[in-house]
Amino acid sequence: MGPTLDSTPAADGYRMPAEWAHHSGCWLVWPERPDNWRLGGKPAQRVFAEVATAVAQTEKVTVLVSAAQYDNARSRLPAGVRVVEMSSDDSWMRDTGPTFVTDGTGDVRGVDWDFNAWGGLVDGLYFPWANDDAVARKVLEIEELPRYKAHFVLEGGSIDVDGEGTVLVTEECLLSEGRNPGLTKDEIGQRLRDYLGAEKVIWLPFGVYLDETNGHVDNFCRFAAPGKVMLTWTDDVNDPQYKRSQAALEVLLAETDARGRRLEVVRIHQPGPILITEEESNGVDTIEGTLPRQTGDRLAGSYVNSYIGNDVVILPVFDDPHDQDAVAAYTELFAPRRVVTVPGREILLGGGNVHCITQQQPSGR
Amino acid sequence: MGPTLDSTPAADGYRMPAEWAHHSGCWLVWPERPDNWRLGGKPAQRVFAEVATAVAQTEKVTVLVSAAQYDNARSRLPAGVRVVEMSSDDSWMRDTGPTFVTDGTGDVRGVDWDFNAWGGLVDGLYFPWANDDAVARKVLEIEELPRYKAHFVLEGGSIDVDGEGTVLVTEECLLSEGRNPGLTKDEIGQRLRDYLGAEKVIWLPFGVYLDETNGHVDNFCRFAAPGKVMLTWTDDVNDPQYKRSQAALEVLLAETDARGRRLEVVRIHQPGPILITEEESNGVDTIEGTLPRQTGDRLAGSYVNSYIGNDVVILPVFDDPHDQDAVAAYTELFAPRRVVTVPGREILLGGGNVHCITQQQPSGR
Repeated sequence: MGPTLDSTPAADGYRMPAEWAHHSGCWLVWPERPDNWRLGGKPAQRVFAEVATAVAQTEKVTVLVSAAQYDNARSRLPAGVRVVEMSSDDSWMRDTGPTFVTDGTGDVRGVDWDFNAWGGLVDGLYFPWANDDAVARKVLEIEELPRYKAHFVLEGGSIDVDGEGTVLVTEECLLSEGRNPGLTKDEIGQRLRDYLGAEKVIWLPFGVYLDETNGHVDNFCRFAAPGKVMLTWTDDVNDPQYKRSQAALEVLLAETDARGRRLEVVRIHQPGPILITEEESNGVDTIEGTLPRQTGDRLAGSYVNSYIGNDVVILPVFDDPHDQDAVAAYTELFAPRRVVTVPGREILLGGGNVHCITQQQPSGR
Repeated sequence: MGPTLDSTPAADGYRMPAEWAHHSGCWLVWPERPDNWRLGGKPAQRVFAEVATAVAQTEKVTVLVSAAQYDNARSRLPAGVRVVEMSSDDSWMRDTGPTFVTDGTGDVRGVDWDFNAWGGLVDGLYFPWANDDAVARKVLEIEELPRYKAHFVLEGGSIDVDGEGTVLVTEECLLSEGRNPGLTKDEIGQRLRDYLGAEKVIWLPFGVYLDETNGHVDNFCRFAAPGKVMLTWTDDVNDPQYKRSQAALEVLLAETDARGRRLEVVRIHQPGPILITEEESNGVDTIEGTLPRQTGDRLAGSYVNSYIGNDVVILPVFDDPHDQDAVAAYTELFAPRRVVTVPGREILLGGGNVHCITQQQPSGR
């Protein structure tokens, strides 16, 4: 069923399609660890269920869940959502799930990257991460899809593709000490091309300020269409995000994509800054070795961290003055898809957002 | 995906097909609990892998396994066998898995019985059994098949069907105090007809001597074809099995099946008696609350406890003088299927055999 292949997607003629390509389904992992999700994960579970329900309107959804939380997840999710037991260390399916690749004829395979909790023993966010590292392989077994094993540390949230040969990444993340310190930038670029079936890598210097993933690109800058990217922005020159977004803009405007196109950059103003309240902080177990969630800490809120489903786009909003502009931008960018907003704060409190908790499975057609 | 239906298979026109009807696949659970399987389950795992490999020759096989044993199972099983994480309390998929039913047009659904470890707090074999009780539902979720929830204690090994309206059971098991003490024999018969889509229940008094399941029929007497049953036999009138087999023979010869046919009874002489050796006993953890595996205990060995695959029959043998006759009987009964023998002793030491550890999923065609 899931044999492990010795080659690479590029060598076999496979590539990662853009997220807007047709999906056969979407995967999530049910949140529960009390040292990351406040109040035993109950507020987050409500929002995860909302995301799953919204995505399930136009594609099959599978939610992976621990044995302990199985019955609860099953009862809180609609009957149309598939619930499957699986061990994990947290609930970031974008980063622990397989990256699916296709050959353009409907055949789908999966890339199983090394996962080390965003930095391993250097600056990873928890230990151990062995269950998370096994998620991609287990998903491919369930789906009976062939597996490429990439001996290379990468999370799905640290890449974004246009499906036409271009990959977006940040140096802050891909060149971080905790991931692949033995590889040069060129070698890392080659791995990306080999396993994503791409030709060109565009390197942005940084991601979002204080993003605990070392600046995942999916929280910062993503393709909305070939030749068109969304970029988290701020007009406040005194905000630490300003220089980061400005630096990315300069790269993007100077670059061309794999097909030689110049890039249109759609700036989407960030929400916030969003800070952890005392009540929120108090709801999280304090455990040595897990990232603390302290009162007043600034969260890496972003409207770019969305999910592009078959006929819907799931957009996190924050009860923030910038919500309205984000909805308007998405409505225009992704028409005729319907924009479905979900309250993003509870996911953000755990360290990510809608894109981080989802993983699309392309149909390959 | 897996909605739970309020009706019964019989009411909806579904029935359990005979085991020789075409399968889309077969399910097993990887053995590991050290208080039942000697030497950490390693000898049993070897035989389970042999069974899975043999079945996988002609149908898809899925092996369910705990998170702790996942990597080991994956490496010990052929790549063509699907390995899926699932919690369980032991590895008797016949008894914990769903009973699949079909409507004759290719549609398949599953019955999820109550499971209480073969007798609950009365004479069950271990406690707790909550993970086992959840297996059927989880399998139906994975397969996206509708579920009938039968609020009735039953294991798949306690029934055998001809697919044409007849069910074989034993009174020893179905009327045991630890299962459904609040129901009369007639009420139990009605449940069987409702959930198996059958018309007639044939009640044998007993199963195999010392069978710890309270005499599961699948270790004793099973249909080999419509109108034809295999019956565990002994020629030794002093063996405690003699009266049990004789009593069943009398019932079978006096009965007709649901279609009014008289039954042909093929007697298959039992192996042994097979006793637990001191070495075998010493390899099992001794835990209060689990059935002890003591030196000299007689095991319920039987050749009837086999698996009827798409083009093969998997028959346990015991390095016993009766092996040869069993193989000959099977070869004749199941031609043109190939008879594949596996060493049954290590499964028997855990309390069952090939049929107990497998669960066929009919294709419905």
